[in-house]
Order: sequence, then structure tokens, then C-alpha cells
Amino acid sequence: MITASIVGASGYLGGELLRLLLGHPEVEVAAAVSTRMPGRRVDTAHPNLRECTDLRFCREDQLPDTDVLLLAAPHRETMRILPRLAARAKTVIDLSGDFRLTDPARYEQFYGVPHEAPELLGEFVPGCPELYRDRLRTADRIAVPGCMATAAILALAPLAEAGLIAPDVEVDARTGSSGSGATAGPQNLHSERSGALRIFSTGGHRHEAEIAAACGVRPRMTATGVEAVRGVQVVCRTTPVREITEPEVRAAYRRRYAGEPFVRVVAHRRGTYRLPEPKILLGANYCDVGFALDPGGGRLLAIAALDNLVKGGAGAAVQSLNVRMGWPERLGLEFTGIHPV
Amino acid sequence: MITASIVGASGYLGGELLRLLLGHPEVEVAAAVSTRMPGRRVDTAHPNLRECTDLRFCREDQLPDTDVLLLAAPHRETMRILPRLAARAKTVIDLSGDFRLTDPARYEQFYGVPHEAPELLGEFVPGCPELYRDRLRTADRIAVPGCMATAAILALAPLAEAGLIAPDVEVDARTGSSGSGATAGPQNLHSERSGALRIFSTGGHRHEAEIAAACGVRPRMTATGVEAVRGVQVVCRTTPVREITEPEVRAAYRRRYAGEPFVRVVAHRRGTYRLPEPKILLGANYCDVGFALDPGGGRLLAIAALDNLVKGGAGAAVQSLNVRMGWPERLGLEFTGIHPV
Amino acid sequence: MITASIVGASGYLGGELLRLLLGHPEVEVAAAVSTRMPGRRVDTAHPNLRECTDLRFCREDQLPDTDVLLLAAPHRETMRILPRLAARAKTVIDLSGDFRLTDPARYEQFYGVPHEAPELLGEFVPGCPELYRDRLRTADRIAVPGCMATAAILALAPLAEAGLIAPDVEVDARTGSSGSGATAGPQNLHSERSGALRIFSTGGHRHEAEIAAACGVRPRMTATGVEAVRGVQVVCRTTPVREITEPEVRAAYRRRYAGEPFVRVVAHRRGTYRLPEPKILLGANYCDVGFALDPGGGRLLAIAALDNLVKGGAGAAVQSLNVRMGWPERLGLEFTGIHPV
Amino acid sequence: MITASIVGASGYLGGELLRLLLGHPEVEVAAAVSTRMPGRRVDTAHPNLRECTDLRFCREDQLPDTDVLLLAAPHRETMRILPRLAARAKTVIDLSGDFRLTDPARYEQFYGVPHEAPELLGEFVPGCPELYRDRLRTADRIAVPGCMATAAILALAPLAEAGLIAPDVEVDARTGSSGSGATAGPQNLHSERSGALRIFSTGGHRHEAEIAAACGVRPRMTATGVEAVRGVQVVCRTTPVREITEPEVRAAYRRRYAGEPFVRVVAHRRGTYRLPEPKILLGANYCDVGFALDPGGGRLLAIAALDNLVKGGAGAAVQSLNVRMGWPERLGLEFTGIHPV
Repeated sequence: MITASIVGASGYLGGELLRLLLGHPEVEVAAAVSTRMPGRRVDTAHPNLRECTDLRFCREDQLPDTDVLLLAAPHRETMRILPRLAARAKTVIDLSGDFRLTDPARYEQFYGVPHEAPELLGEFVPGCPELYRDRLRTADRIAVPGCMATAAILALAPLAEAGLIAPDVEVDARTGSSGSGATAGPQNLHSERSGALRIFSTGGHRHEAEIAAACGVRPRMTATGVEAVRGVQVVCRTTPVREITEPEVRAAYRRRYAGEPFVRVVAHRRGTYRLPEPKILLGANYCDVGFALDPGGGRLLAIAALDNLVKGGAGAAVQSLNVRMGWPERLGLEFTGIHPV
Repeated sequence: MITASIVGASGYLGGELLRLLLGHPEVEVAAAVSTRMPGRRVDTAHPNLRECTDLRFCREDQLPDTDVLLLAAPHRETMRILPRLAARAKTVIDLSGDFRLTDPARYEQFYGVPHEAPELLGEFVPGCPELYRDRLRTADRIAVPGCMATAAILALAPLAEAGLIAPDVEVDARTGSSGSGATAGPQNLHSERSGALRIFSTGGHRHEAEIAAACGVRPRMTATGVEAVRGVQVVCRTTPVREITEPEVRAAYRRRYAGEPFVRVVAHRRGTYRLPEPKILLGANYCDVGFALDPGGGRLLAIAALDNLVKGGAGAAVQSLNVRMGWPERLGLEFTGIHPV
Repeated sequence: MITASIVGASGYLGGELLRLLLGHPEVEVAAAVSTRMPGRRVDTAHPNLRECTDLRFCREDQLPDTDVLLLAAPHRETMRILPRLAARAKTVIDLSGDFRLTDPARYEQFYGVPHEAPELLGEFVPGCPELYRDRLRTADRIAVPGCMATAAILALAPLAEAGLIAPDVEVDARTGSSGSGATAGPQNLHSERSGALRIFSTGGHRHEAEIAAACGVRPRMTATGVEAVRGVQVVCRTTPVREITEPEVRAAYRRRYAGEPFVRVVAHRRGTYRLPEPKILLGANYCDVGFALDPGGGRLLAIAALDNLVKGGAGAAVQSLNVRMGWPERLGLEFTGIHPV
Repeated sequence: MITASIVGASGYLGGELLRLLLGHPEVEVAAAVSTRMPGRRVDTAHPNLRECTDLRFCREDQLPDTDVLLLAAPHRETMRILPRLAARAKTVIDLSGDFRLTDPARYEQFYGVPHEAPELLGEFVPGCPELYRDRLRTADRIAVPGCMATAAILALAPLAEAGLIAPDVEVDARTGSSGSGATAGPQNLHSERSGALRIFSTGGHRHEAEIAAACGVRPRMTATGVEAVRGVQVVCRTTPVREITEPEVRAAYRRRYAGEPFVRVVAHRRGTYRLPEPKILLGANYCDVGFALDPGGGRLLAIAALDNLVKGGAGAAVQSLNVRMGWPERLGLEFTGIHPV
């Protein structure tokens, strides 16, 4: 049994961390820091946790020493918070974007401001066990990738690692509204966001840098907000470097993800849910990946879906923690998702 | 051809007034006042009006004299705005709640503050042609009823006027998110409001006072926010004062609304849309009314549906204007609604 | 460890039974009977179960002897299926409506056909531990109540049992589309059902009989299909028989449900989720109950929300099984629900 | 004043034809043929038309001679229906896919069956006034393009005609559920289709052939069903053949669509609705087109949105009819769309 504390606990990712860790058999939640709601019960912000906990949010200065510290604070703020809190915990898992990139110049390029703790950048291992499991076993600084990045990375990794695709990749990402967080602006008003098909990025998105670093590709991403609260789907358009066949691609995916507890290869010939779709993944830690190869073989779509707050955030953090602690990787993450929903 | 100006033009009701009046063959829109967005194009706030108009929002002090002034400003503000602007127009149509009640004490009871222009309260005729058509023909102060009130009033009027029901009425109102306006708070964030079944009032709602005044009943209203942007539906539980039959009720509705251009009696025995439902009314000025009588005759449900921004607001304003000007009542309001949607 | 088999396993309730029982630490799923899809993998119908099971649907004649048999077949069919299968299992849990009522005349009144196995009617204990826990401990015939009935029963029981309310109760039920099942007709086409506020019953619904039997009230129910896949909410309008206060009502609810693992009293003065709402219950076995008392005390609303496929069906079945077997009641039902969603 | 008759009038496109033509000042609807519902009132299938018409569906053999015949029947059936009915009207407008392609071999390639009236294929002019206005002025055989094809064609035409882009184009299409029609199968059940992000085509879609023919490009299309009833959005990934600038692209679009009544160029730098989105187009005949050029200029996204049943079907038919008859092109198509919705 270890203790865990969460900073940024009143936001949506903070709420998911609480949900997962309160249900985790090896973790005791020691503190939930919120600057917006100190003193309030955590189920005020997260009504799904009613009668699961009597915990209250606390201020940062009330944070106890803890075995693992999870940060779900905003980008730019986190690079100020983390240095002053890092000593409070042996292991730090950050869910913001501030420690995902290793190169400060790259950070400034994508985030528009200089990094304020560049000396820490190199210490973090990406919280993506499918790619970095061995390093995570001993990592005490973990940075969970962005939700759309995780989907794209898991869709592309089997192809990129096998050398099957050219480096230029078009990533079409679709995402629900919860990715904008609990304090978002007027464009997230229900009347405006409901029924949206809102192309909010046509290239240069921060997650491109993470995909590039993980897969060695040159991604170009568009992102569309769709009518959903949770869920991310990516469709990656790739070009095979040589003639390949559908069974060959299928084998590459199956081989790469054999034994992975949270990646399922979904590429069926028929059926309603024959390709990855977030609808059946809400609350679950799965990333479903699939593909479609053009008959001529000239184009290969790599597709993935996940719940942005679980596998795209809090679930990946818990899975990484499980790896770090040597626990069974599915611990506390057994929920399968529901259907229909 | 007359000129019309709109105050509060950047809000949702303001946008609907613009849409309807820009398409009205007898009206020229002279000015659109917005305190939030002066100088900006109106299609910035209302993207559906792109290429329909080059109009820009102006400040209140830029408001020209105009034939008709329509106010779509918030409650409490309007009772301050209206007195200083009333002289700018021959006819004033207010869509706020500030001039719907005639008794200042009643206003204070329901709105929680004293009325600041009580001397004007008696001047206003409700903008509900189905009940006040004759008075509207000469009215120069018109107050459009609330969206849920209009639905309940049109559902109940045929029963109340015919003396068929006891005064105690339970009104169950369901409403989309646009009724909260374009500047609503955190509970209207898409992630929170999406999929809601949110009982936000269990009695004492302001619209009760309007229903009481129009129908001579004692309403008790609950209101639930449902997953929709537009649309209001009310289910009114009434008690017949004597034994009545289904054909008798049907006749009461049909007789009462014979010739009404915007009220349809919808009470079919079968079919998917056999009772009023806002889904097929989006953008249209209809209020569909229907009913269901218990086999034993002991309970009579009166049901209505409308688009809260049209028949529940801007459309009622335009219909009232048509009545006032002696124009055909359907002018500028011909849109039938779409299906499916 | 016991074995469980499911009949009607390809439907939505069947899928939830599979999800819950596959994750139940004391149960092994022996067989999943489907007349529509024998031989197909269960994850064909229930894609959320991919990589959770390799089970395939079988025909009824392939059903093995099993410790517990769960039936999720349609009404009218179940009363034919159950007699011929009952001997195959020690314990039978039925989720259809066929064995919920004890009086064959009452069944015929509400279901429109004579009961074909009336001799079995009296054997069944309702699968509602909050009301029948003691009887369930030894029950080998369990009939899970209807989803809207469960919500209304749990909302009303504390008031009815304490003798606080008059027998006449208006129940306003709102429900998602999954209650219509996986083989529903044209009115369940997405284009027609999306955005619906469809009043599909205005009295005489079958669930009325269950509410009456459980709470000793005379319910009159209206039911509205709302835009949701899962979820039921009921608003019950009751009349106190004497002057009561809000703290008194609150105490009645808290006392009645003290220690109940799956009923939460939700009746807050403020906050977005201050009354029960299904949005935060998806996938969870909770029934949230709350209330609102008129200032004058003349009307008391009893409110409840649940996930119709879980606490309103499969979850109640598993909870009843836990009671029957003497296991901890939360076993296999720990999922808290997610927020936002 | 001319007479118009509709075949396939009980479907969704048939309903939109009825809505638009019943409101058209120069058209009288003579007959509405439905094989499913002969003798029933048209407002049974299309409840939005209640009190707009007393028309009833008739059988095909009751079809009178008529000035214009509009066919909204399924693919494959239409090529049998049209030859036997063509003589009944001077002008025929077909909304199916059967007469969109001119080459029978191409038809067989994309539709999987041989064409049964190949001799008629060459007679049809595409019902897309933006590309074929002059030919439409005298056309008596008009084939309205597919909804996704229209969006892609209008997005790509300014670029393709100006020789700005390479022929290989990736088209990412997103579509609501109404495109599947009123008689669709189990995957269109609300519980399954709600919240979907369903990639149902990854290449080889029939609309590719239309885009290729209209724009001289080699399109490769993926299509995703999104949570919406109406609406299509396409994102076309193109490669500029030379260095171009954003103002140059903007000028190409503006020039190409100057004076077009139903195409709006939407490519703003900021704002919630800065790129085309179907949400604000429901019921309207607009196709909004926009674009995004990569900073480096290496990739150019062409984007379009429309209502699949209006500009993507019935509205395009009426607009084409207006052109054919020499009427003002906006006649009967003035509805601007609503916001918010």
C-alpha cells in the first residue's frame, strides 16, 4: 500500500485520477489539492464519487509527503508547480504538457513560451507503457502523453517500428469536449458546442511533437471537436514504403500488441463496430487500434480510439504507476466499458 | 415598410429577432445594439446570418429613432433600459421578464428585487396573439411571455376558458440549454450540460406567475433541463371538474384554436409523433398542443411544445408585431420546421 | 465459485449481465444462449467485451445444468421459456416482466394476454434488495423489477412506509432509448429518436402495477423518451398526509437507506448535480434518490435516477444474486460511474 | 406556376422536396408517390408539414402528367422507375445515384451491378448550378450529386479549376444519420448510432466517382458517421503544385464563388465558427466552403459543410429547377439556418 496525492484534483483529469486511485487496491489517496475549491468535498466537483469518499480538497501548502505525486494542472503552470513540489514525493507523474518534450527549444516552438524548468525536461519517461515499459519500471519522473498523441502513437507505432511507412503522416483527430477542461470558455457553452464539427487545429498542434518523438514520423495533424464529452479517435493517413498486404499489416499489429493488456486490434471485415470507436470505450483504459489498406496498397489508414480522460490521461498514469511499482498492470483498471451507451 | 431596432442583439433571442426581421418583407432593421460587441459585424455573434446582412452592432447611444424597438436584454436590466429608450420608438416590444407582470408586488415576489419602473407595468399587453389579439392590434407596449409560460398557457387556455379543469395544475416543463442565454455559467459547459436531465426548479418559477395571470389557474411548476439546445415541452397535469370525454376535450382544443396560424392540435392515437414534441419545431413559430385523458376521466394531461427562441420569444414578438401593424400574421414566419433533425 | 448461464444473452440486458458476471470474482459464466446469434462470439453483439472473453452464444438446447440461470428474454416469451428451463438451475433470476406480478388477473390486465404459467407467479421474490433483502437470502426464484418501477419504488418507499403520503401518486418517468432493446422498430431509428422528447405512455404502463404492489400507492405514470441511450429518471408528485418539514423528509430518506450500498440520498441546496440525474450513473449500480418539498408543504416531489441496464436490470440481478449467495453485496458492482460523460 | 410530382415521397429526401416545393411560390405539388404509404396523409411521414398541406401519398399508377418529376427513390430501383415514368413529365430531376455517372462501366464498378438503362446516362446534367449553371438552363434531365460529393466538389472546384493542386486528394467526409434514409438497418438504431464515430468507408465510396468527374482529381475518400441527424462536412487534403499564399487561395475561392447565392467562403482567423460546420446550416441551402494552408505551403486543406438533405439533395434539386425555369435562384430557398441549435 502506498500513498498518492493529486494536484489539480478538481479538474476533469483530477477527477479521473481520484476515481481510479480511490478504487485501486494498493493505493491510498492522501491529498487532493485544488486551488479553486480548498476545503470543499471532492464529490462537489466529482458527483460520481459520492459515498465513495469523504475526502476534501486541500491547499497546496497542506500537501503531505507522499509516495507518488500526480499532477493534473494546466500547461505553463505545471512547470512552476513541479519544481517546488517534486521533493515531496519519490515518484512524480505529470499529466500536463510541460514535461512531455525533452528539448526546450521544441517546447518553446509548440507552447509559445520558454520553458521555465528546462533542466528537468530530460528526466521524464513518457507514461506510455506500450512503448516505454522497461524504462517505466524504474522511472520516478513520468510524463503522460497527450490524449490525441497517445491514440496516434499507438496507431502508428507498429507500422513505424516495422519500417512499413513513409515518414509523412496526416493525422485526423476527433475529440470530445472534456479535453478542454472544466474551466473552458464561451466556445464550450453547451449551445455552441453541442452538435459541433469544429475544426480547431489544422496543423502545428502540440501533440504533433509528441507523435514525432515517439514514432519518428513527421505528423501533420488536424483536430475536430465532435459531439461527445469523452472520446478521441484518430485516423492517420500513411503511405507504405513498399508493397504490403492486408495480412502483413494485421500481423504487424497483432505481433506488436500481443500480450498488451490495454490495446486491442479492431479491424473487422463487417459488423457495426468493425473499426476503433470511442463510444464503447467510455471509462475504460483500452486503446483500440485498427487499420485499412487500400486495395492498391498505396495508402494505409491507421486508426485508434480511446477515452481521453482514461487511456488518454488518468488511466495511462495509473497503468504507468502499476508498471513502476511492479504490480499487475490491470490493477484498478478492470472496467471494460459499456455498450450501448 | 417600417424600421425596427433591437437592443440586446448579440444574445440568442437578439439573434433570432435579427434572423426573422431581416427576412421580414415589411421591416427594415435599422440598428442592433450590443453592449458586448459594439462595432462588430452581427454575423460574428450569429454566424447563420453570414451573407444575409452587413449590419454591425452599435452602442445604445447610437440607437436611431425607429418605428419599433425590440428589447432582448436581461431581466432587471431591462426595467432600467426601457424607460430611457421608450421615447425612441412608437412601439416597444420587450422579451425580458420585467414587464410581463402587472403587479409590482408580484414582480418582487418572483424576481426578488423591487421593480424600478412600476408605473409602466400596466401599459404592457402580453405578446401572445392567441389570447390577446384584439388588444395587440392597438398595443404600443408589448411584453412577450416566457417560453415555458407560453407553452403552458397555450396548453391550458382551452381547458381553463371552458371551465373544464380545477385551478390546481402541475406543470412539468422540459427545456433546452439555449434558454440560459449566450453568457451562462459553468453548469452550461458542454461537458456538464450534455446528456443532462437536470431538475433546476421544483416550484416558484417566475413563469408560474404568468401562467396564473393568463389562465386563472394555480400552477405549480417543475423544470428540467434536457439534452437539447432549443425546445420546450410542458406536460400539465389537470383535474377535470366534471366527467368529460376525449371527444369533448378534442373539440374544446379544435374550437379554441380554429384559424390560429401557429397553434396545431396534435393528439393522435398512433404514430411516432402523436403528441407535441419540440424536435420537429426547431426554427418554426408553431406551438403544438395536445392532451391525454385518463380512461376513468380523473386526470387530464395538457401538453405543448415549441421552440423557445421562436414561438417562445422572437417569433412571438414578430407575430405580435404583425398583429399590431395589421399585416398577415404569418408574414416572415413561414418556416415550417424540418424533419428529421 | 458458482456457474451462471444467461438466456437472451445477445440483447442489451443480456450484454450487461455478461459484462457484470464475467467480472464477478465468484461467478463463472457457463453459457450464453441466443436464438438470434448461436455460434457467434459474444463480443460480436457486445463489442465492449472484446478480449474479456472468448465465449460464444449457444442454442437453448445446448444449455448446461448451471447453478444460476438468468433470463433476459422478452415478455410473453419468458413465461414459455422459464417452465421448460427452470429445472436446469437451482436459482433462477428473471429480468422480463412475466414473473413480476403475483396475480394472473393483474398480469392479463397490464400485459394484455393471459399468463401461461400462472402456477409459478407466486414463487418469485422481487429482485430489489432494498425492499426484500431478507426474502432474497433464500429465494430461488427472483424477478427483477422494471427499470422505471425500480426508480419509482426507491423514491417512494421511504415516504410510503413512513405513512407520510397519500396513496395517489403521479409518476413522471423519463428514459433513454436502450430500454426499447436491441431489436426495436422504426421509431427507434437514430434520425427519429435523436433529440426526442417523446411521451409514449400517459397512464396504464405496466410498471404502475409493480410500484403499486411494492409501495401500496396508486401510481399514475407518464413516460417520456429523452435524448439518451441509458438512464431513467422519475419525478413522483406526492401529497403529504400531514404537515411535514424538509428535515423530517430528509431524515426519513437517510434512515431508510442507511447502510444501503447502492442508494444515495441526493438532495442538495445548490450545485449542478443537486438532485438525482442519470448522467453520472452510467454503468454504475447506484440509484440516487432525492426530494423537494414545497415551501407550503402541500406537495412533495420524490425523485430518483438510475442506469436502466444496471440498477434497472442486470445490476439488480447481480446484487440480488450476491444477497442470495451471502456474498458481499457490492461484489462485481464496484464501478462508480464516470463524470463528465 | 408549374406542377411538380415527387416519387419516393415518404423518405427523408422526399420529405424535404415536399417541404421546399410546398413553400415554393411558383410550384404546385401535384402528387407524392409512395409505395410504402399510399393513401396516407403526407404529414404522417413528415410531421413538420402538419397544417401546411392536406396532400396524401398516392401509388405510382396514380401519378398524373406533371411539368416536373422529382425522383427520390433508392439507387438501383430508380434506373427501373425512371424509364417508365420519364414520359410523364417534361423535366425530370433525379436525386438517386443511378444517373450521376455517364459511363455504364464506371456505374458497374461503383454500384456493383450493371446499369439497366445505360442509354439514358448521357442525358443527365448534374444538379450543381455552381458548376453547370449554363447547361442546367435548358436541361430536362438533371441528376443531383451525392451529398458528400457536392461538399467535396464545391470545396475543391476553385482549386482544381485554377490548377493549384495535384490530382491526388484525400477526402475525409463526416456525415449525420439521415443520409442512411428512413428505412435503415440495425446499425442505425439509436442506441447503436448515438455518439458514433463510425468509419464506414475507407475508400472506393461511390461519391468518389462524382468528385473525380466534376473536378478532374483522383479522390480517395474515408467516411465517418458522426453524432448528428443532418449535416455533412468534408476535409480535403490537397497538395499545391507550386508555392502559393493564403491570400492567393482566398482570392481563388472568393472569385470563383462571387455572386453565388448559396456558397459562402468561411475561413476566418478567429471565432468559434471560423471554418465550415454543418451545425449552423440545418434546413438551409448553403454550402459553406473554407480552407487552411500550411505555413510551409506544402499542404492545403479544402473544407466544406452543408445540410445533406438540402444543399446535398432536395435544395440542390430546387435550386436546379429554379435555374432551369429562369426563376430567381433563391426562390423557395430563403431559409438562413438557425443558431444556436
